[in-house]
Amino acid sequence: MSLNEESSAKCFGGLQKVFSHDSVETKCRMRFSVYLPPKVFEENFQDGKLPVVYYLSGLTCTEENFIHKSGVQKYAAELGLIIIGPDTSPRNVGVSGENDSWDFGTGAGFYVDATEPLWASNYRMYSYVTKELPAIIEKNFPASSSARSIFGHSMGGHGALICALKNPGHYKSVSAFAPICNPSECPWGVKAFSGYLGANKESWKDYDATALTRGYSGEKIKLLVDTGTADKFYQDCQLLPENLKNAVDGNSDAFDAKFRFHGGYDHSYYFIASFIGEHLKFHASALQTEIA
Amino acid sequence: MSLNEESSAKCFGGLQKVFSHDSVETKCRMRFSVYLPPKVFEENFQDGKLPVVYYLSGLTCTEENFIHKSGVQKYAAELGLIIIGPDTSPRNVGVSGENDSWDFGTGAGFYVDATEPLWASNYRMYSYVTKELPAIIEKNFPASSSARSIFGHSMGGHGALICALKNPGHYKSVSAFAPICNPSECPWGVKAFSGYLGANKESWKDYDATALTRGYSGEKIKLLVDTGTADKFYQDCQLLPENLKNAVDGNSDAFDAKFRFHGGYDHSYYFIASFIGEHLKFHASALQTEIA
Repeated sequence: MSLNEESSAKCFGGLQKVFSHDSVETKCRMRFSVYLPPKVFEENFQDGKLPVVYYLSGLTCTEENFIHKSGVQKYAAELGLIIIGPDTSPRNVGVSGENDSWDFGTGAGFYVDATEPLWASNYRMYSYVTKELPAIIEKNFPASSSARSIFGHSMGGHGALICALKNPGHYKSVSAFAPICNPSECPWGVKAFSGYLGANKESWKDYDATALTRGYSGEKIKLLVDTGTADKFYQDCQLLPENLKNAVDGNSDAFDAKFRFHGGYDHSYYFIASFIGEHLKFHASALQTEIA
Repeated sequence: MSLNEESSAKCFGGLQKVFSHDSVETKCRMRFSVYLPPKVFEENFQDGKLPVVYYLSGLTCTEENFIHKSGVQKYAAELGLIIIGPDTSPRNVGVSGENDSWDFGTGAGFYVDATEPLWASNYRMYSYVTKELPAIIEKNFPASSSARSIFGHSMGGHGALICALKNPGHYKSVSAFAPICNPSECPWGVKAFSGYLGANKESWKDYDATALTRGYSGEKIKLLVDTGTADKFYQDCQLLPENLKNAVDGNSDAFDAKFRFHGGYDHSYYFIASFIGEHLKFHASALQTEIA
């Protein structure tokens, strides 16, 4: 499990790095980004550990979009958080049709473990982001194995939500920008789940944040969901945050949740950049007691 | 002189827009970005004017890199500044060889008015950024015609410096990230100036910040120059900030200047993002008295 450093650049006093490695889950070379805040390089840090926040990107993204466009480093530097950003799918694994669509296959792993035979061998992004990647991070960086949070955008917002809902207590907080909240009921999700999980819609519930929320009974989840009202994917009913909110309201003892709608914001990184500081503060607050 | 709005997205409460227009100077379609801070949209703003800061990008960039990667919008929103970002050259004008090099021709206009016959008709980026573009901005947006500042990166840092040095009093402050400070003496500059201005090195002095600084006698210039010590172009003597600093030191009455060297930072937008907040505060301070 050797890591290859692809790039490293100083940013807000810390280091923004990208690594590649051979993944056991996806059976291909994978890349991920790591931001190490300045605290890591202080003389008295030594064998310390810092809280880690995972960020899952949306359709068509690689590990690059987020670290170039979100402005996350400023806030991670101030709050002393390590930020991890995986890629959005396996790449170049030779599955027939993997590059035919922008919303399925390459760049669109949807953070599930595929069960359909064609995809099942490589498209295991759920296990990759919840198990393989955290183990790598905690082995190679000064990352706490208990103080973890997760967030994401669009398809990655869906990913963040299901990772938290399927692993009670594993993440201290979860947040999302414009997440796909109910994939079983929107065109993107129906296409992806049909392809990766097959025609039986019962199996989709395992990866649908709204369905998972209805049945959730674990440790209380701290949740923040932001959506822009000028987001055309919201307007086109791809995101369905109201469905998730209804499910949360129906199971309110299990959630400490806030749903916000921001007038005039769209689906782009300009929206993410505008609110990422608030998201990191939300996570830092949840992680603080853990690390203190 | 009609403007076509290419895109518009809400960002930090303001709007990040891109426009295109037919340029008189470059005789082609040009694009530029405009960030309008939230102050513009306040009810009591009405016919107000805000200070404007121009940003000139570096080699290979379009108007996009800066607005995607620098994080400028956060600070512009807080400080109430309009930010303008032009493209780096004419495009698709049909000059033979315009696309042969990444450091000459397309994406590399060097903010000069070319005199060599092949380039002279279109490559007039100096007149474009100092005259044509400001007139468009002041006509179409609530932009002050007196409270202007300018900054840039690399080739655009050179551009910002010469715009300020050639137009005393026109810009209230000038700053640069990793600027090409003495183009007559570095490989990038020698190639560009030979191509655009011809073999006579005397003519190069009109567009060389270090040469212009030696002879400067106008209104005192407020200047901030940041360079990263891990910048390979600095190490390769493409930037030569020491030459500019020596020229400023030799004409110190004409400058209120600060040169900073930042350990470990490279030439990328990670460097720019880390310090752009300080640059905008520097400009806001210089512009404040103008607008009050």
